[in-house]
Amino acid sequence: MKTTQKIINDPVYGFITINHPLIFDIINHPYFQRLRRIHQMALAYLVYPGAVHTRLHHALGAYHLMCNAIAELKAKQIPITEEEEVAVKAAILLHDIGHGPFSHALEKYIINSVHHETIGIALMQMMNQELDGRLQMAIDIFTGKYPKPFLHQLISSQLDVDRMDYLTRDSFFTGVSEGVIGYDRIIKMLTVHQGELMVEEKGIYSIEKFLIARRQMYWQVYLHKTVLSAEKMLIHILERARHLIDTGDTQCKTGGTLDFFLYEKPSKISEEVLQQFCKLDDVDISFAIKKWASHPDFVLQTLCNKLLNRQLLKIKLDSKPFSNEFIEAQRKAAAQQLNINERQAVHFVFTGEAVNTMYKPNDENIKILFKNGEIRDISGIDNPLIHQTISSPIKKFYICTLT
Amino acid sequence: MKTTQKIINDPVYGFITINHPLIFDIINHPYFQRLRRIHQMALAYLVYPGAVHTRLHHALGAYHLMCNAIAELKAKQIPITEEEEVAVKAAILLHDIGHGPFSHALEKYIINSVHHETIGIALMQMMNQELDGRLQMAIDIFTGKYPKPFLHQLISSQLDVDRMDYLTRDSFFTGVSEGVIGYDRIIKMLTVHQGELMVEEKGIYSIEKFLIARRQMYWQVYLHKTVLSAEKMLIHILERARHLIDTGDTQCKTGGTLDFFLYEKPSKISEEVLQQFCKLDDVDISFAIKKWASHPDFVLQTLCNKLLNRQLLKIKLDSKPFSNEFIEAQRKAAAQQLNINERQAVHFVFTGEAVNTMYKPNDENIKILFKNGEIRDISGIDNPLIHQTISSPIKKFYICTLT
Amino acid sequence: MKTTQKIINDPVYGFITINHPLIFDIINHPYFQRLRRIHQMALAYLVYPGAVHTRLHHALGAYHLMCNAIAELKAKQIPITEEEEVAVKAAILLHDIGHGPFSHALEKYIINSVHHETIGIALMQMMNQELDGRLQMAIDIFTGKYPKPFLHQLISSQLDVDRMDYLTRDSFFTGVSEGVIGYDRIIKMLTVHQGELMVEEKGIYSIEKFLIARRQMYWQVYLHKTVLSAEKMLIHILERARHLIDTGDTQCKTGGTLDFFLYEKPSKISEEVLQQFCKLDDVDISFAIKKWASHPDFVLQTLCNKLLNRQLLKIKLDSKPFSNEFIEAQRKAAAQQLNINERQAVHFVFTGEAVNTMYKPNDENIKILFKNGEIRDISGIDNPLIHQTISSPIKKFYICTLT
Amino acid sequence: MKTTQKIINDPVYGFITINHPLIFDIINHPYFQRLRRIHQMALAYLVYPGAVHTRLHHALGAYHLMCNAIAELKAKQIPITEEEEVAVKAAILLHDIGHGPFSHALEKYIINSVHHETIGIALMQMMNQELDGRLQMAIDIFTGKYPKPFLHQLISSQLDVDRMDYLTRDSFFTGVSEGVIGYDRIIKMLTVHQGELMVEEKGIYSIEKFLIARRQMYWQVYLHKTVLSAEKMLIHILERARHLIDTGDTQCKTGGTLDFFLYEKPSKISEEVLQQFCKLDDVDISFAIKKWASHPDFVLQTLCNKLLNRQLLKIKLDSKPFSNEFIEAQRKAAAQQLNINERQAVHFVFTGEAVNTMYKPNDENIKILFKNGEIRDISGIDNPLIHQTISSPIKKFYICTLT
Repeated sequence: MKTTQKIINDPVYGFITINHPLIFDIINHPYFQRLRRIHQMALAYLVYPGAVHTRLHHALGAYHLMCNAIAELKAKQIPITEEEEVAVKAAILLHDIGHGPFSHALEKYIINSVHHETIGIALMQMMNQELDGRLQMAIDIFTGKYPKPFLHQLISSQLDVDRMDYLTRDSFFTGVSEGVIGYDRIIKMLTVHQGELMVEEKGIYSIEKFLIARRQMYWQVYLHKTVLSAEKMLIHILERARHLIDTGDTQCKTGGTLDFFLYEKPSKISEEVLQQFCKLDDVDISFAIKKWASHPDFVLQTLCNKLLNRQLLKIKLDSKPFSNEFIEAQRKAAAQQLNINERQAVHFVFTGEAVNTMYKPNDENIKILFKNGEIRDISGIDNPLIHQTISSPIKKFYICTLT
Repeated sequence: MKTTQKIINDPVYGFITINHPLIFDIINHPYFQRLRRIHQMALAYLVYPGAVHTRLHHALGAYHLMCNAIAELKAKQIPITEEEEVAVKAAILLHDIGHGPFSHALEKYIINSVHHETIGIALMQMMNQELDGRLQMAIDIFTGKYPKPFLHQLISSQLDVDRMDYLTRDSFFTGVSEGVIGYDRIIKMLTVHQGELMVEEKGIYSIEKFLIARRQMYWQVYLHKTVLSAEKMLIHILERARHLIDTGDTQCKTGGTLDFFLYEKPSKISEEVLQQFCKLDDVDISFAIKKWASHPDFVLQTLCNKLLNRQLLKIKLDSKPFSNEFIEAQRKAAAQQLNINERQAVHFVFTGEAVNTMYKPNDENIKILFKNGEIRDISGIDNPLIHQTISSPIKKFYICTLT
Repeated sequence: MKTTQKIINDPVYGFITINHPLIFDIINHPYFQRLRRIHQMALAYLVYPGAVHTRLHHALGAYHLMCNAIAELKAKQIPITEEEEVAVKAAILLHDIGHGPFSHALEKYIINSVHHETIGIALMQMMNQELDGRLQMAIDIFTGKYPKPFLHQLISSQLDVDRMDYLTRDSFFTGVSEGVIGYDRIIKMLTVHQGELMVEEKGIYSIEKFLIARRQMYWQVYLHKTVLSAEKMLIHILERARHLIDTGDTQCKTGGTLDFFLYEKPSKISEEVLQQFCKLDDVDISFAIKKWASHPDFVLQTLCNKLLNRQLLKIKLDSKPFSNEFIEAQRKAAAQQLNINERQAVHFVFTGEAVNTMYKPNDENIKILFKNGEIRDISGIDNPLIHQTISSPIKKFYICTLT
Repeated sequence: MKTTQKIINDPVYGFITINHPLIFDIINHPYFQRLRRIHQMALAYLVYPGAVHTRLHHALGAYHLMCNAIAELKAKQIPITEEEEVAVKAAILLHDIGHGPFSHALEKYIINSVHHETIGIALMQMMNQELDGRLQMAIDIFTGKYPKPFLHQLISSQLDVDRMDYLTRDSFFTGVSEGVIGYDRIIKMLTVHQGELMVEEKGIYSIEKFLIARRQMYWQVYLHKTVLSAEKMLIHILERARHLIDTGDTQCKTGGTLDFFLYEKPSKISEEVLQQFCKLDDVDISFAIKKWASHPDFVLQTLCNKLLNRQLLKIKLDSKPFSNEFIEAQRKAAAQQLNINERQAVHFVFTGEAVNTMYKPNDENIKILFKNGEIRDISGIDNPLIHQTISSPIKKFYICTLT
């Protein structure tokens, strides 16, 4: 029988090849297609107009890098069965299936305190039933239960293809060239030793570049202060809506799936919750914001209009917390300017921490395999730039204000 | 006073510079910000997952090319005043302001039979009032009333910066490298003679490349059969909804701005219509489709679900029309399969023409200025490839079917 | 045993992987290393300053595309043994081994009337002896004797990886974006049917693009009139030197390997000739030009100085031959200006034909495999642009003059 | 009068525009054309096959960045007269005019102990006479005598366009993407304050990227151990030849301009020396190596053959010097293997230091202009990565050995 093959144009990698029935089945599944309607970078497009790419696109890109990584490891004689190969590709396609609208920006705000990965595993299991158990090995690899640890590490570790794709892709679509990581060279440098994913010695400069590019993406993109302001405004919009609902409002109803989450307030996973969750995406949130832009509540209405028209709250960053006096003064000023009370002004003047969650030396790690057979963790390498980059996470404080 | 300057990252051109108060005012205006919520390529992302860029991004890109073109012409000593320079840049920023949701795919479906350019001019005039007449020269250039024709031709002609940007940008985001037109070389080749925009003789191969790239983009992207199928499905969804509304349905109400256009059916421009129009964007249509996916009407519900989950109608292209017998047979089969009547089956089996509207020799044209001072239209050049490319528009017939 | 692997940075493709002992042995061989000292594009760098890449680089690039093509065909279940795979890669590495200095510009001028391919095969046979017959299958594939024709076609046919690489590479280094052919998509579209290399039906637009890009490269680069002028001057320099030698000159001696070819005038291949040939490269010609720039013969001296300092002869192209009167008048003028006789002026005023040797319908061809199993030659496809591009070769006449 | 304009294709920046008579005169001058025959990166092409670009190409590229930088500063209202603009562009075109064959690899080896900049200024003065003093302001800017320091700093400082171009260009042609510096963003961030070139506050991350990219280029490219080995071999070849000449050899004569430098041993600049210098380029050295490959001296012959055929000496790097015992042992082994004495073996086993001459905090510096008007040097910025990158130069020790 002729193998069917499909190629998908990708501006980042050129072409992505699909050539296995299970991969086709996953891509055609409504749960996967839903990812088309979730922005990969939430509201970052308010600063970087090109950053409108979707989570589906990222999943396909990570799948492509997985194909390359597997081909490389097989060329290096690492034993990988055909079944494992398909399973690890299936797993990477599904790794973000549990993301809700606006991805990380609203993480844990949709189903109270439930992480997207927990939802993801539940959804994979539902799909696995539909697909007659064909996803079992993929799930085992994803959850770290499969005996060959390097397969899991390709999906989730400091050097997984997930990170490689999102840094590359986010750098591409934002146009921030500082984020180019050199994924192709890193993949050429991967190897497996004692069942673990490692990087060959001559790949150290590639790792250096990867870590630095990631650092630059954090400060220039992921924690860009204007993006931060927009995402915090989005959260305040949802919090204000929840508050109104708690006090009896019915005008926050959108007529769509979001109502279930706002009015039923699920805080754990059930079959019904999952069914509803799979109908929810960025469109529901965007529609709500447009609708609430004429809601009678002044705070909700104002926040929504500001976000819609990109009239964002001013934001400042500092290495130490802002004083209570300063915050209070700003709130008073905002209250006066908008003719609201100070409790309401909390939605226009607020503060918090932005954290650059980099590589943590005691947590996961990148192992280097030296030519002489020695294995060292990246934190043990004699390279001052790497040391500087991976040492303790950098924290900044932000304050959003009306003017 | 210090000139304020802002640079915007663009993955296509690197950086776009904004440095004039009028340009800032336009970009910050809600009418312009609305273009963030309109996909440049409608549903093309169902085939090209990267093609999710927005009309706002295209407008900024065309503005950037305008800056380059003006700089080039000024370096060639073409007289352009500072006021004209700002006006022509303002005009290109606003050239697509009248686009409704899903751009060309729904052209004339939102306000019955009214073209986006008509809406655009009306919106520009509203903005002009708000901005104390500062847009007047831009409007004059846009509508062709300004005495220097080349300024209008930079905005709207066979070689305008609008086309240069959308071909370049669409090629970039789809990843279809065949569409790369070489905009930078074309701009270097522009000149003005007797008030008209022309191309220098040595630019002929660049024009050849431009025309061929455009042709390839038509067949590979704009008229890609799967994209065509999706866009026709979208139109059938709206037509079915309108039909239901005409026969008394109230369940098509979405709770948003779309309701005004569906239930009031405006067919000409009034202040109220424009106000509503400016609140409408892709989000409203996408939300409607999601909502109608559980509408009781089987046809509407099915079309919406299919489009949402990318289960598109099959489509075939041919150089001659499909026979009535074939169409009828397909409709019968579809009716039987879905258990509907044949009138309803019209929404699952339908036919039409796809036209590649290329350069038309008798319409607008590209003028070449030879070194010896002679001027010739591109259609009069001794270049068989150009002749072949620009001759009469190519037409294909399509049929969409259920299976 | 661990397979050794080496990766080479290539600005065009990223990384080229070497991982077989025979491939290492070829690359490390002095005959192959000699290709470092031969410009891929002869004197084109006088117009395109970036076009200084070497024939070694091209050979590595063609090898890389061969690796991709073989991987693609194997993924499509085309049977290719490991031995065949190595052999076809070895053959492509060696396909240009017979090139002399300045490649095509001096083709047949070094060893009188002997084509580079004839020299190449002789050199491959010498290497084969050194390498204990390990090149035999590569030579059989190269010379078309091996039973699977598609292997030979990958090396030499209208769509071979040689062309794909040189068009891509020359386009890259010249910066002429019109020459981008989309090699990756073409390779994805290759298949084998009845032992022959074919292109899948959906690859037709890629072929269209390939043919058009090739056409543009011919006119913009390979037959660029200034490049033509420089290359004709180079030939006139060598012809003048030969003429002087024929009439007894000894001052043309350079002290290097070129002397053997100038003074011994070999016109067929012998072991000695081959030994000398392998010591000859662009350096010898460049050194000769520098030395002859102070040769007492005025014609030789002047041509050399002009070429060295890029003071090239003027050149005009026309679709019909230049009249004898015009040529004579130009020669008279040149003779007068330089104070030389008219026979000498022939080296400053001369004429000839430049031919765009495109795809010839009756010669080799590109076969398209349709989904329905039908096979058609590209010339039989219903595509007017392709027809126009591949029809009879285009010829232009040139004249070089002093002023 | 119509301004003549010429555009040159550059694969790095797209197009370079030439549009002033003085710039044309410089580019057409034989001294400038000579730079076509000098590799920008000496022997780096032995590791990076694409790195064959020339010093002429770099000069054109630096000129292009200068055009961009001047346009940016003028857009920021920095006063720059037309005469200054042409002069600073002329100066950057000429900044490397004093480079001899193989650039830095042979620096001070051609004219004993004379730096290329000294030669360059002498050549500029000769050209200035020919050009009727039109280069005077360019020379004043180049030598730092012109009153506006920022013009000189654009040519020579930590952030000059020279560095920006060579890092960008060398990264491009080697294919080492780690070296991409983001020149366009840096140029957008340049400003002038109190006559000095500065970087705006928001450009700090661009500077961080620039410094890190430079660091990576040093270790991966400029001090790549194999490149180092080849360049040291080249020096040993010249030293051996000089030694033979000192002891009476005449067979080192090449018949070209190199003989003057080898046999006359000029150690300061005179008109004759300069005349000869302008005839010397990479071709002379390459030809000598090819000729000496059959010189009777075994050491010279062997080194030349090894370099020609890329059979390079083995090289090791270490953070501390190699012990004398180790060096002696290696020399003994080499002497025995090659059947030479230990004094001769010095050319096959030798040691030295490779230094990464980075930004030195007390030397030149990069000034940052903060929004509040404050000026701080880059070394005073609160950025640990920058600190790490610019701190004391890193030194490694190398040893080359026969096996």
